[in-house]
Amino acid sequence: MEKPAPAHYPVHELIGRRWSPRAFADRPVEPAVLCSLFEAARWAASSSNEQPWHFLVAAKADTTEFERLLSCLTPGNARWVKDVPVLMMSVARMTFEDDGKPNRHAFHDVGQAVATLAIEATALGLFIHQMAGFYPDKVRELFKLPADYEPVAAIAVGYPGDPERLPDDLKKRERQPRERKPIADFVFTGAWKQRSTVVGG
Amino acid sequence: MEKPAPAHYPVHELIGRRWSPRAFADRPVEPAVLCSLFEAARWAASSSNEQPWHFLVAAKADTTEFERLLSCLTPGNARWVKDVPVLMMSVARMTFEDDGKPNRHAFHDVGQAVATLAIEATALGLFIHQMAGFYPDKVRELFKLPADYEPVAAIAVGYPGDPERLPDDLKKRERQPRERKPIADFVFTGAWKQRSTVVGG
Repeated sequence: MEKPAPAHYPVHELIGRRWSPRAFADRPVEPAVLCSLFEAARWAASSSNEQPWHFLVAAKADTTEFERLLSCLTPGNARWVKDVPVLMMSVARMTFEDDGKPNRHAFHDVGQAVATLAIEATALGLFIHQMAGFYPDKVRELFKLPADYEPVAAIAVGYPGDPERLPDDLKKRERQPRERKPIADFVFTGAWKQRSTVVGG
Repeated sequence: MEKPAPAHYPVHELIGRRWSPRAFADRPVEPAVLCSLFEAARWAASSSNEQPWHFLVAAKADTTEFERLLSCLTPGNARWVKDVPVLMMSVARMTFEDDGKPNRHAFHDVGQAVATLAIEATALGLFIHQMAGFYPDKVRELFKLPADYEPVAAIAVGYPGDPERLPDDLKKRERQPRERKPIADFVFTGAWKQRSTVVGG
């Protein structure tokens, strides 16, 4: 199933087609494909080229590692993520490597890497679904994260599957229309909340 | 000038071509193009679909607004950003709209929106350059940001220009090779720092 964005202005098809499904096919993701996803993340921009992004990854076929990562999710997410072929956890280094000072853009740059990975996934016929619903302390403990690192988001990755296989409530959510705020709500010029003339406002 | 990523694994050309130049052409960015950039940002993923991203924008032709935004940059950035056709500031809403609780992924999701905008820019022949070197307090004061909002990054936007027009030190930086950590440094399975078998490690 695909759910292209009902865009107001033209956007590249990879951007319009990217979305966050819960229905994934029961098909493993090839190592070469995963390499391209991480390669895409790798070339994202970051503050001082710090590249604060890290990923814990488990394929479903590797039951031990998959269960370990799955155990960090809230029950509401675990109930459908148990069926995805690849599960990841993004992790941010919160300090700069060279001087140990706080990196104000650590989460921001992890977000940039994952958004870039999501575009590459779309280009290769896959989709990702990020989740805030997981237990950061459990990740920290189970994977012995060093003090400067922070778990950011859980990420399901795979080829699209049949929404009919989802639980009823999620099946319904899968088919709901995609919604976003209009540009006038978040683009301003001159003063806060002042509609931008730059975009023809 | 373009500077494609020396990638280890194949990535989509829009991802490989995206980079952060300082040399921009002396050519305005059309309103329709800016609309497509914000449209791309609009369709990024965000935690609970909160869409915490906002943008303050000024075109160089609008001298008053451009100077106002430019005055928030550190001198090291202002000296070259003064020549770019469009300057933006990304701003994050740090709390959820419905209950006012802190949004742990506010910066993360602004990063996702801007990374998506950067891909759309590349597709339309433009580039963006984000900067951490600006004065958040000055932005907050000049644009009267409400308490829950935080300036995130300054962003130069435009068509690529001639590096020869940059100051000598920046001309040199513009031509330096692009570098990233190898995948083995940031993708792990089972334990922290343990090379992932999922990517053939």
